[in-house]
Amino acid sequence: MVRVAILGASGYAALELIKILLNHPHVEITALATRQEGSPPIHQLHPSLYGRINLACEDLNARQICDRADLVFCALPHVASMSIVPELLAGGCRVVDLSADYRLRDPAVYEKWYGHAHTDIERLKTSIYGLPEIGTPGIPAANLIANPGCYTSTSILALAPLLARDLIEPTGILIDAKSGVSGAGRAPKLNTLYSECNESFSAYSVGTHRHQPEIEQVLGDVCGQHVEVTFTPHLVPMDRGILATIYPRLRQPVPQAELLKLYREYYSGKPFVRVCDHLPTTKDSAHTNFFDVTLRFNRNQLIIIACLDNLLKGAAGVAVQNFNLMYGFPETMALPM
Amino acid sequence: MVRVAILGASGYAALELIKILLNHPHVEITALATRQEGSPPIHQLHPSLYGRINLACEDLNARQICDRADLVFCALPHVASMSIVPELLAGGCRVVDLSADYRLRDPAVYEKWYGHAHTDIERLKTSIYGLPEIGTPGIPAANLIANPGCYTSTSILALAPLLARDLIEPTGILIDAKSGVSGAGRAPKLNTLYSECNESFSAYSVGTHRHQPEIEQVLGDVCGQHVEVTFTPHLVPMDRGILATIYPRLRQPVPQAELLKLYREYYSGKPFVRVCDHLPTTKDSAHTNFFDVTLRFNRNQLIIIACLDNLLKGAAGVAVQNFNLMYGFPETMALPM
Amino acid sequence: MVRVAILGASGYAALELIKILLNHPHVEITALATRQEGSPPIHQLHPSLYGRINLACEDLNARQICDRADLVFCALPHVASMSIVPELLAGGCRVVDLSADYRLRDPAVYEKWYGHAHTDIERLKTSIYGLPEIGTPGIPAANLIANPGCYTSTSILALAPLLARDLIEPTGILIDAKSGVSGAGRAPKLNTLYSECNESFSAYSVGTHRHQPEIEQVLGDVCGQHVEVTFTPHLVPMDRGILATIYPRLRQPVPQAELLKLYREYYSGKPFVRVCDHLPTTKDSAHTNFFDVTLRFNRNQLIIIACLDNLLKGAAGVAVQNFNLMYGFPETMALPM
Amino acid sequence: MVRVAILGASGYAALELIKILLNHPHVEITALATRQEGSPPIHQLHPSLYGRINLACEDLNARQICDRADLVFCALPHVASMSIVPELLAGGCRVVDLSADYRLRDPAVYEKWYGHAHTDIERLKTSIYGLPEIGTPGIPAANLIANPGCYTSTSILALAPLLARDLIEPTGILIDAKSGVSGAGRAPKLNTLYSECNESFSAYSVGTHRHQPEIEQVLGDVCGQHVEVTFTPHLVPMDRGILATIYPRLRQPVPQAELLKLYREYYSGKPFVRVCDHLPTTKDSAHTNFFDVTLRFNRNQLIIIACLDNLLKGAAGVAVQNFNLMYGFPETMALPM
Repeated sequence: MVRVAILGASGYAALELIKILLNHPHVEITALATRQEGSPPIHQLHPSLYGRINLACEDLNARQICDRADLVFCALPHVASMSIVPELLAGGCRVVDLSADYRLRDPAVYEKWYGHAHTDIERLKTSIYGLPEIGTPGIPAANLIANPGCYTSTSILALAPLLARDLIEPTGILIDAKSGVSGAGRAPKLNTLYSECNESFSAYSVGTHRHQPEIEQVLGDVCGQHVEVTFTPHLVPMDRGILATIYPRLRQPVPQAELLKLYREYYSGKPFVRVCDHLPTTKDSAHTNFFDVTLRFNRNQLIIIACLDNLLKGAAGVAVQNFNLMYGFPETMALPM
Repeated sequence: MVRVAILGASGYAALELIKILLNHPHVEITALATRQEGSPPIHQLHPSLYGRINLACEDLNARQICDRADLVFCALPHVASMSIVPELLAGGCRVVDLSADYRLRDPAVYEKWYGHAHTDIERLKTSIYGLPEIGTPGIPAANLIANPGCYTSTSILALAPLLARDLIEPTGILIDAKSGVSGAGRAPKLNTLYSECNESFSAYSVGTHRHQPEIEQVLGDVCGQHVEVTFTPHLVPMDRGILATIYPRLRQPVPQAELLKLYREYYSGKPFVRVCDHLPTTKDSAHTNFFDVTLRFNRNQLIIIACLDNLLKGAAGVAVQNFNLMYGFPETMALPM
Repeated sequence: MVRVAILGASGYAALELIKILLNHPHVEITALATRQEGSPPIHQLHPSLYGRINLACEDLNARQICDRADLVFCALPHVASMSIVPELLAGGCRVVDLSADYRLRDPAVYEKWYGHAHTDIERLKTSIYGLPEIGTPGIPAANLIANPGCYTSTSILALAPLLARDLIEPTGILIDAKSGVSGAGRAPKLNTLYSECNESFSAYSVGTHRHQPEIEQVLGDVCGQHVEVTFTPHLVPMDRGILATIYPRLRQPVPQAELLKLYREYYSGKPFVRVCDHLPTTKDSAHTNFFDVTLRFNRNQLIIIACLDNLLKGAAGVAVQNFNLMYGFPETMALPM
Repeated sequence: MVRVAILGASGYAALELIKILLNHPHVEITALATRQEGSPPIHQLHPSLYGRINLACEDLNARQICDRADLVFCALPHVASMSIVPELLAGGCRVVDLSADYRLRDPAVYEKWYGHAHTDIERLKTSIYGLPEIGTPGIPAANLIANPGCYTSTSILALAPLLARDLIEPTGILIDAKSGVSGAGRAPKLNTLYSECNESFSAYSVGTHRHQPEIEQVLGDVCGQHVEVTFTPHLVPMDRGILATIYPRLRQPVPQAELLKLYREYYSGKPFVRVCDHLPTTKDSAHTNFFDVTLRFNRNQLIIIACLDNLLKGAAGVAVQNFNLMYGFPETMALPM
């Protein structure tokens, strides 16, 4: 049994992690941590867990966590993450970090987009970006996984096959992305109130969303070229799911059937990628770890439609997928399909 | 032109007040107040007002308000209301108070349910409860209207005809009420976040909701007897609307058709009450000032189904209806139907 | 491996059955049937199944089904069910019938509420009502399980402990029930269109809903008395979940804590029942096979709040629970928690 | 008083027309027509109209309509519209046609996208496209207004200022549009069921949506050049509202402030256009006749965000706006703001 701790246990990604891990035959959840006062049983924060797990949600420091756990899922906000991860690693824990703190290779880029100087710069060079489908051989042996962002995975998985084969221009790629509200987290804010979001559709962070540099960095790695995307996020009145509509420019005409074949080859053997002929909806992959994608043309304009569940394949699901790879378990173990 | 001020301008009821009053031919909105810092234009708080009104939302004291307005709609939280209303009245303003502060006649009841000692006890005797359909002759001459609660109006209007004619037992009345989320206000709280409310239906404040004593008091006035209700509120994943399913006990059998006739007579000449044969839905009266009601039987059990829009007939709409009566304007003026 | 067929495969309950059974280690789905023309792959009807199962949805007769399957989940509409179940049983299949056709013991009651004469009256005496938590010893050996209705299970499980101990009056029980829209099925109808249901809450079938006699029959069995309930269903703008607010009349006062203790004892050892102290929401049990219940008082009026997922514990989940019991598998096998 | 008939009275656009016209001081609604059997009162089809209008919904022929009305709002589906409009005009009625039948100038384009040969080709040359903000001087004198599509108006109003001033390339314009479900009409279909749309976001008709040629034609008229857009529609789980995110290519850099100034000049004096600095949401203009628009940059990529209510400014609202211009009433009369 791998002893597992979850930090930031009061949030939505943590709830999904707990639910998945309760079904994992080789995991024992041994610690749940949050800044919450008192040490309430976790079901007081997440009533859906009532009767499922008897753990309190405690305010634990790194040493206490390392005493109890072999691996830590760190679901803290950025900055908070990089202030505890070094101690966890030093204490002998392996870490899957769901924040953005170890995703961007260049500390200057991090500081520009996140507004804080990075305090653990050396480790940016050794952390492993955890998106198994694009081939990151370092995952099994990694001690620190930078778990990717939800918009990021949607965009990267949708574009990787085309960029890897050099079929599209690496710049001027338009990504029009739409997300359910759970992606905005569980901290009470005016703009995520029910009466603000419901019956409303809106664009936000136009030109300024932090997943843009992450998409560009990882896709740059995929193709070995400088990639530039225009990423525009929108908020959809629904709980979960991301759909990205992506407009790349093909270098030269390629038939739709050939492109779909290419995608199927590129993702051959990847159990969570579904290249489909029909137009996928967010509901098709909701509550699963699947990534769904298809392609269409409007005149000569290629259009990619890609979906995933932001809390699962976009956060907690891929985190457990990385975990499975780190410990040699089957990649799909415990993950909802 | 009546010069009107609105206090608590950042909330949902205030937004509806502003929208209604912008259509009122005899009203000029002259002041919008809130505790907000700076003095932002009102459209920064309510973007839907962009281009419709050029007023800042200011932090004004009673004297400043009285200088600018003849009548004040006070959409502040309870306690805040009774700390400014006396000054507004002293300064010469008439007041329609949307809070609960002047609704309960007995200060001990107020203190028990609201957790604060009442600080303006004398005025509880002279404030006028503003539900025009149950006949409150004091409204036109009133200087202080206690505007009723949303659940309260739904329940009272649904039961008044039966109690007024002594057709049902005045105790043991079950009111199972369901409300859209806007009734919970606009202050960010965990339990009104989109991702908490959406795809969820829940009961809350079971046995402890503050509208219960208000319903009992006003219905007691209607029938001259001691009334006891069991009021159970629920939260519905929708913006607006209340539906109450009410189970009274008939003293003796009365046919459904006769009861509907009774309701139609009781509310004869009331422009906002619709006694209907079909089962009304909240959507039928949403965005209007209507109250819809019908009756059914299940074996011998009478069931009343009643609906209204919690922000309009349940708050801002009835407030303007009271305003119209106070100034001798047609009762329906500017009110959405 | 148990070979399983699913009839009525195009509906929502069937989709849930397929998803659950794909995770069941002892089940092979061998046939999916519907009246659909052509024999489309099931993922054309349910795109979320893309890549998960390679079966066509065929128009099969009873003999063809019996050739392929050991057990049939019959998710057909009422009437359709009783016209094929006798042949399936004669052909050697065991059947879990999700329709209402074998739930009501008295064919006259069936005819009154469903508007069709029953055509398989003899079998009404031998079918087993499949609600494991209220103790139906016949389930393991049954060849025909009448799988209970969703509103029905919510109501029965909420009331059974009180009736079994004779703590409440068996008549005059008020059940105010609220359901998500998926309970209305997948056949296109005006009143289940998005734009009709969304932002609307409504009562329907007041005094005429078919689950009322089923609730009364089964609760009558539980307590050995004639039970009468007033059942009022409502439609909630959400996908899934039922919450029932139930108002029974206690024969004599019993403290809340004692009642909760009674519930916990009554459901001791039942893995899918959660007696909780907090007020459960439909979201807590959505996507699981749990039934959640708690109790409150308003003055002396007892109020029961009970929730389940109408498609799982209310339909497909309990069906697989029955299946597990029929074949001696662990009761919780493959069922989402 | 202008006597007005509404055809296709059972749909959502007709409901909005009725509600607006009931507030119009110079309109008398004299006929409501639909293919419905019997002649039910209109409130049986639209319960929200209960108590507001006493008209039956009848199956009327053109002659009967012309006897009763001066002007007809034709809210029939395409093809049905062009089969009755010639008779209505011959009978002396003026017509505002909400279908697509008179919008496309070229009958071959109509036939290609709508799958039917056009049967009233001559009139395509004389019908007036009714989008007042882009300057169609023929509206006041028109006998037949082709009322624009909802996606179409959103896209045209968003792009017209840039194309009119030749600031962007007229081809390769990407329009990523998102609409609430009411745009899909009120006829029961699987893909507009609540349980299909709710908690789901999807693209549809990618590369094949009928509003694309309409957008291209009207924008071509605006700029005198051949315009080509890639139009991708999406379905949002909400009742009403369209938001379009539009990616044009500027011919040369222009600062954001200058572009906003240009928009404000272009739409100067247009009471329903709000050029705003903030990012508009669909909720800001829902239930109003406003069109909201702003601009942003991501690096050098210009992004336009535009919103309107698909049933009002996108259908019934602009129809009444055209009506007001046809009869010399103030453009804003009776229209919700």
